[in-house]
Amino acid sequence: MSLDNHIRESHTDVLIVGAGPSGLMVAYWMARYGIRTRIIDKRETKVFTGHADGIRMRTLELFDSIGIYHRVRHEGHPSVEPSFWVPGEDGKLTRQGPITPEQVFESPMAHLLLSQGRIERFMLDKIREYSDIEVERGVTAESLEYDQSQDNDPNAYPISVNIQHFEPKTSMNIPTDLPADEWDDLYRQRQRRQAGSENIKAKYIIGCDGAHSWTRKQLGIPYEGASTEHIWGVIDVVPISNFPDIRRMGTVSSKAGTMLVIPRERKLVRFYVPTHVFESTTTNSRFDRSTITPEKIKTRVQAILTPYTFDFTIIDWWTVYQIGQRIAPTFSKGNRAFLAGDAVHTHSPKIGLGMNISMQDGFNIGWKIALVVAGVADPAILNTYNPERHPLAEKLLAFDKFWSTYFTTDNQEGRTGSPGRTDEMINIVSGFQDFADGVKAFYAESSLVSKAGNETGPPCASKLVPGERVPPVKLRNPGNTQIKWTTRIMESDGLFKLVVLAGDIREKEQKDRVDALGDYLAGSDNTRPSVLTRYATIPGRPKGIVDTLTIHSAPWTEVEFFDFPEILRPLDPVMGWDYDKIWCDSACSWDRYCEGKGYERWGLDRIRGAMFVLRPDQYVGWVGELEDVDGLTRYLDGFLTQKTRTLGMSSVPDMEVEF
Amino acid sequence: MSLDNHIRESHTDVLIVGAGPSGLMVAYWMARYGIRTRIIDKRETKVFTGHADGIRMRTLELFDSIGIYHRVRHEGHPSVEPSFWVPGEDGKLTRQGPITPEQVFESPMAHLLLSQGRIERFMLDKIREYSDIEVERGVTAESLEYDQSQDNDPNAYPISVNIQHFEPKTSMNIPTDLPADEWDDLYRQRQRRQAGSENIKAKYIIGCDGAHSWTRKQLGIPYEGASTEHIWGVIDVVPISNFPDIRRMGTVSSKAGTMLVIPRERKLVRFYVPTHVFESTTTNSRFDRSTITPEKIKTRVQAILTPYTFDFTIIDWWTVYQIGQRIAPTFSKGNRAFLAGDAVHTHSPKIGLGMNISMQDGFNIGWKIALVVAGVADPAILNTYNPERHPLAEKLLAFDKFWSTYFTTDNQEGRTGSPGRTDEMINIVSGFQDFADGVKAFYAESSLVSKAGNETGPPCASKLVPGERVPPVKLRNPGNTQIKWTTRIMESDGLFKLVVLAGDIREKEQKDRVDALGDYLAGSDNTRPSVLTRYATIPGRPKGIVDTLTIHSAPWTEVEFFDFPEILRPLDPVMGWDYDKIWCDSACSWDRYCEGKGYERWGLDRIRGAMFVLRPDQYVGWVGELEDVDGLTRYLDGFLTQKTRTLGMSSVPDMEVEF
Repeated sequence: MSLDNHIRESHTDVLIVGAGPSGLMVAYWMARYGIRTRIIDKRETKVFTGHADGIRMRTLELFDSIGIYHRVRHEGHPSVEPSFWVPGEDGKLTRQGPITPEQVFESPMAHLLLSQGRIERFMLDKIREYSDIEVERGVTAESLEYDQSQDNDPNAYPISVNIQHFEPKTSMNIPTDLPADEWDDLYRQRQRRQAGSENIKAKYIIGCDGAHSWTRKQLGIPYEGASTEHIWGVIDVVPISNFPDIRRMGTVSSKAGTMLVIPRERKLVRFYVPTHVFESTTTNSRFDRSTITPEKIKTRVQAILTPYTFDFTIIDWWTVYQIGQRIAPTFSKGNRAFLAGDAVHTHSPKIGLGMNISMQDGFNIGWKIALVVAGVADPAILNTYNPERHPLAEKLLAFDKFWSTYFTTDNQEGRTGSPGRTDEMINIVSGFQDFADGVKAFYAESSLVSKAGNETGPPCASKLVPGERVPPVKLRNPGNTQIKWTTRIMESDGLFKLVVLAGDIREKEQKDRVDALGDYLAGSDNTRPSVLTRYATIPGRPKGIVDTLTIHSAPWTEVEFFDFPEILRPLDPVMGWDYDKIWCDSACSWDRYCEGKGYERWGLDRIRGAMFVLRPDQYVGWVGELEDVDGLTRYLDGFLTQKTRTLGMSSVPDMEVEF
Repeated sequence: MSLDNHIRESHTDVLIVGAGPSGLMVAYWMARYGIRTRIIDKRETKVFTGHADGIRMRTLELFDSIGIYHRVRHEGHPSVEPSFWVPGEDGKLTRQGPITPEQVFESPMAHLLLSQGRIERFMLDKIREYSDIEVERGVTAESLEYDQSQDNDPNAYPISVNIQHFEPKTSMNIPTDLPADEWDDLYRQRQRRQAGSENIKAKYIIGCDGAHSWTRKQLGIPYEGASTEHIWGVIDVVPISNFPDIRRMGTVSSKAGTMLVIPRERKLVRFYVPTHVFESTTTNSRFDRSTITPEKIKTRVQAILTPYTFDFTIIDWWTVYQIGQRIAPTFSKGNRAFLAGDAVHTHSPKIGLGMNISMQDGFNIGWKIALVVAGVADPAILNTYNPERHPLAEKLLAFDKFWSTYFTTDNQEGRTGSPGRTDEMINIVSGFQDFADGVKAFYAESSLVSKAGNETGPPCASKLVPGERVPPVKLRNPGNTQIKWTTRIMESDGLFKLVVLAGDIREKEQKDRVDALGDYLAGSDNTRPSVLTRYATIPGRPKGIVDTLTIHSAPWTEVEFFDFPEILRPLDPVMGWDYDKIWCDSACSWDRYCEGKGYERWGLDRIRGAMFVLRPDQYVGWVGELEDVDGLTRYLDGFLTQKTRTLGMSSVPDMEVEF
């Protein structure tokens, strides 16, 4: 018993409920911006085994921008060429494939599989690197009040949540082979814990608390859709099998059903097995979990793989679930309460997308809230969360419905288990590939995305599309000889990046254009400060919210760092000139991925270049010619707080009519 | 004050004195083999700033085999194309270069720079991953007795060392920007510390305690050579300079002297500045350190860089030293005491090789001692340490003498600071390149290296040279679709690897050859057990000391995992078949480094292949045709303990005369 019987009271800017993948993405932004944040989770410990494991190309690119890709790649199991096994003409299982998706050439980051628990470890380490935010575990939220009448008062705390901290349990079920780096955290966690009640007043709440989201229910947001008849068993095991592709990603279809095979780290393989063919799994219309055991799932895998053998001794994790295909009609309430991840969309886990879409939800809303809390952006940007993320959740459910059909349609002759059926499945997958891999985000026109009526980039940069990602390119830094992918160069540091694609300044005319842009950016005209000095800064941080990054197209030895206007390579009295700000698209003889073809990939004229704004979450916001400083200013004025304006009172600027 | 006034007594198999780079490499092996080990260091904390920073290609390859390369690459600053600045015809500084060394194409791991403190962090994390060995800090060794009469008794503890544990200091000088992952260790260290005296009885001692090695002095091993007249100042600063190459690796020569510029992590740049041109730096013949200050070093850099500017605010580390070019005539005493790293060779630090050679010393001796302690190998293998490492230390000193001349020769007209002089320097560097980058190790014939009289590989594998490394190749795993460099596939797990280069088994004749080898390896003939079952195993570890790895040359989709003899892909009742054991040299469309050209690179016939033994430290020990099981057996019998023999009593087998 705690001696502390009164309810503690505290204030925070941001309260995150749930420390899974989406909650940690939100917390990452709060750490980077230095926002006062609490993050609570009802679990006694973090996740160590099982749960999600598929990591798509785009998520890996974002991980690189956060600085954890190298760890994910080191431990993860890349799987990009699936096989599909179906009965051949003689009825025996036959391999179709492997199939090499062209999509993998889009990015250096190939699809891989790694336990959610490790992803969370890497995110926690990053959050700790930038802040003292620590996940508070063994904490349940018990009541939520939200006074929407205070929505427009930036100093108000409209959210009030009562939480309960529990004593650490005296025993825990921890895997014996827990990686060394998980122990420190576990130890620190238990040391810090103190039981008791607490009332937290918050300016913002983000519910990242999963399919049964407490936060969603408290906010009264419905969860539309239904449980399906699809019941699945999942086992993470170290298989003992003579099936040739037991450690290759793919599907196996036979009369006994269709299952997914997902190879993973530590010799584990995950099997997704439909159980609708199991006997007596339902009582009334509700599925009875207790009838399914790992033994039964194993028997089903054995039946599907016949005549190959299948068994296991080590089972790392298992579960059974009835798929609910549900989506919340809105992901927010007022402008202070938001939901992300499974809290607002659930579907079958077997498309390997859930964790990806959930993390990207958190990555989308986190920076927006942080910038509003910091008084740097108009609260209206929060209105872009629903239009940007809800359509993707819809696509997710649509994809899931198609995909599920493949697994659950009865095995009528000529459908499941034939090469024709495989082609159908490949077509389904291909149709969703851009969405699934995250090559396209489909973010629509908004204050944060200036499309100027087109769904492509402008003629000067035809492949840089507002609302989409920047196709990754490996570049050289002529100032310090580094070679890096743009995913790492354009670090997710919280700033808007004005990317100056300076072209070839060996040409006099082009140098003049770049110098003119430099003059504008450095402009000392106080009546019209440039975008670099025009906006409010994050409290406690001297740097402006808009930063520059220059990428030129000349050979790396022929144009020098000092050839560029100083505003593009500013001098800091302590840190010197910023050599990380000038890069070039020039081939490197000792790195095969550094080809000097970025300008082509981005649809640029190598001499004339262009410029664009990259949002903090790594999506293109605006693209224009080097002269289009008016367009640039209009775009940023549309949501950034100008220095002369009052915090939280920014109104819509008059230029917006020109959009 | 500790209440514990009596001297604690304890026993250990291995005592490592000094936890710098070479000591940690020794400790890594002890962790991997599970050898009872103590490692002590007199410093209060680990190194955080300064010290060594250059990491060469071969060291990076070894890091990959240990599993830390990805972390080193993520934080390090690659620098492979140096520039050399010399006065031009008009007397002004002019850039020569950048120069792209062809050597970088030899390996995917390009030369990079990162503080020794981070390397130690990564090694400590790995050691902790495999063991409970923790560095004991704030501990000094006070006396050493070594009773050589017990050398041949494997159960004896001939080494007796008194050590003193000190209380943690009440304050420490810790950098304020210490990375988050360093804090845990610092905290754990301080919690564990208990002051007092202790007597440690050890079977082996390895002195890794630096240039002023206490261990070396106790062992009475001389340090031959002398302090030179070369006095250098080193500063790690964040430079503020308009010199174009201030963050590019290279040299700058002017009338004011020649200095090295070494860019590093965290915007730091290291400058090596000769101070022999400083006034009054010597009193009598001994150099007086106190006359040199960072301010003086800065002034010298400014003079050399004129007319460019140079200044700094942040100084992370600095030192001044008089170069001693010294080498110990032997790196061991008896067969129980060994020395590694700076304890046996010192030279100027500015060739960026010291840490590399030191770590490789530790990597060479560690596994040998561990195998002898474990009773798995003949103690005679310890005799290979001196012949393998001493010649490299000699090369190191020779290189250093040539290189130092470049910096310290007076700037006579037509020499220093002219393009001709630059060519001379490039020639010097090129001549030592194989040695410096570690492309060649030059390990001579011994029980561990079977050269059969040649300095190249045999005709069947002309580029796999006994005593040398395996040129890195990226391979595919057909069983689990992984793609990895051989440096990672051939993990430094402590086992000898019989690498079966199986060729193309689609050819019937070749399949027969591979099957025949499989039959031999799996042979149940108890009178002549194969190399996989013939030798003693490490206590507590069921796996044999010789493991297999198969690399075939057929396209990855055309030969299956199960096409190989089971002994090459053994079945474990719990872990299933070992999919990590069969790889192939087949191109991959989504990874440009995976080309399917490994067989060519290794000088192999794509159909016939060959086989070789890789030592635990990643050097080729023996190469032969697939039929040469006699040669293979003779090689391994030469030093591994056969199961029927008594521990520690293995005699020279009769076959050895045939070498």
